[in-house]
Amino acid sequence: MTTPEERIESLGLTLPSAHPVVANYSACITSGDLIFIAGHGPFVNGHPAYLGKVGAEVSLDVAREAARVVVLNILGTLKAELGELSRIRRWVRAFVMVNGAPTFHEHYLVADGATDLLVAIFGAAGRPARSAVGLSLPFDIAVEIEAMVEVDP
Amino acid sequence: MTTPEERIESLGLTLPSAHPVVANYSACITSGDLIFIAGHGPFVNGHPAYLGKVGAEVSLDVAREAARVVVLNILGTLKAELGELSRIRRWVRAFVMVNGAPTFHEHYLVADGATDLLVAIFGAAGRPARSAVGLSLPFDIAVEIEAMVEVDP
Amino acid sequence: MTTPEERIESLGLTLPSAHPVVANYSACITSGDLIFIAGHGPFVNGHPAYLGKVGAEVSLDVAREAARVVVLNILGTLKAELGELSRIRRWVRAFVMVNGAPTFHEHYLVADGATDLLVAIFGAAGRPARSAVGLSLPFDIAVEIEAMVEVDP
Repeated sequence: MTTPEERIESLGLTLPSAHPVVANYSACITSGDLIFIAGHGPFVNGHPAYLGKVGAEVSLDVAREAARVVVLNILGTLKAELGELSRIRRWVRAFVMVNGAPTFHEHYLVADGATDLLVAIFGAAGRPARSAVGLSLPFDIAVEIEAMVEVDP
Repeated sequence: MTTPEERIESLGLTLPSAHPVVANYSACITSGDLIFIAGHGPFVNGHPAYLGKVGAEVSLDVAREAARVVVLNILGTLKAELGELSRIRRWVRAFVMVNGAPTFHEHYLVADGATDLLVAIFGAAGRPARSAVGLSLPFDIAVEIEAMVEVDP
Repeated sequence: MTTPEERIESLGLTLPSAHPVVANYSACITSGDLIFIAGHGPFVNGHPAYLGKVGAEVSLDVAREAARVVVLNILGTLKAELGELSRIRRWVRAFVMVNGAPTFHEHYLVADGATDLLVAIFGAAGRPARSAVGLSLPFDIAVEIEAMVEVDP
């Protein structure tokens, strides 16, 4: 049985260390067999990256790449919380927030950047109930994702 | 005891088949006795309808009608998941996202279009904890709703 | 052992009565040992206060004060629901929605106004998984917060 960590490596990706918490909150909170994960952004080496409005300063392709970076940051947080990502039973919810230009309406294509990667790593268990919407984000980052997973206790 | 399906029929409404999933996600995910429902839009016959900014291209009345269509689409998803809507014990959460014009501030009146219908069908159990806010939406749809219900296992 | 109510008093603050429900929804819904709390605004004496765009009509400092008022309103709802705030085991999730001007990107500093107060009252158990984002809000209020707590049954 391949582990999520091995699948991440075979995709040529690297699991980052846990996402920096930039203010007074927790990166995730476990309640029962659910983990509620704080909104994560496309931080790289501890700094916000992928800045600007999607559909204006940031292209759709770059926004999808930013969404993949966010997923890796979330996985870094979960790795620190769980020890082994194989303890994740399924992805329950993903709320994908896109810093879209006023005329941008393809938030779901940005969100696919995130869930395509989750499905590549976790199979069907990586396909959460999802919303993808447009709003403004801290630091002017292009994408932020809040998520929830169910785990083996 | 009248079933939710009978109440829907007596209101002159028709339960649609499950909402089309337009990207890489699940329409809903069950975890324990909670069902987390993906953001649903006012799709009609598989196509996005009720397009435009509420308070500008879309009137309040039409937006409320769109919110009712969204509720029916969510019920279509839950019917496919549960078999019988009477397995729904209560509506826990509704996050009502309105594609509002910059000067539109009556998101709660749009959201009442959704929860008035839920209460008509489910009684007091149809009155969730709710937020109603303004942001941009995929396809430029007028309303999108993410929800959560508690069910009998 | 100091109770949350005593800590609120020692901070010179007053617990308001439950937040007025301005439309067809529930102020909170309990499911198992989780309480899902509806979006609460900075209502004062039953009326929306702290109106306008943060970063334009409303300063960062005033927005942080508004976030504190929202937390007190949420605590008023939980006091009515639980009887004693000491039944709150931990703050699980906070979704902090800021009515930000287009160029405002410090949503997390507004949100700290809320979680700093929660931590002052509940200690480390008051530090939820959190997102802080910018969008439009009902009544043009400056801040709205949706939250979730875990309680002793």
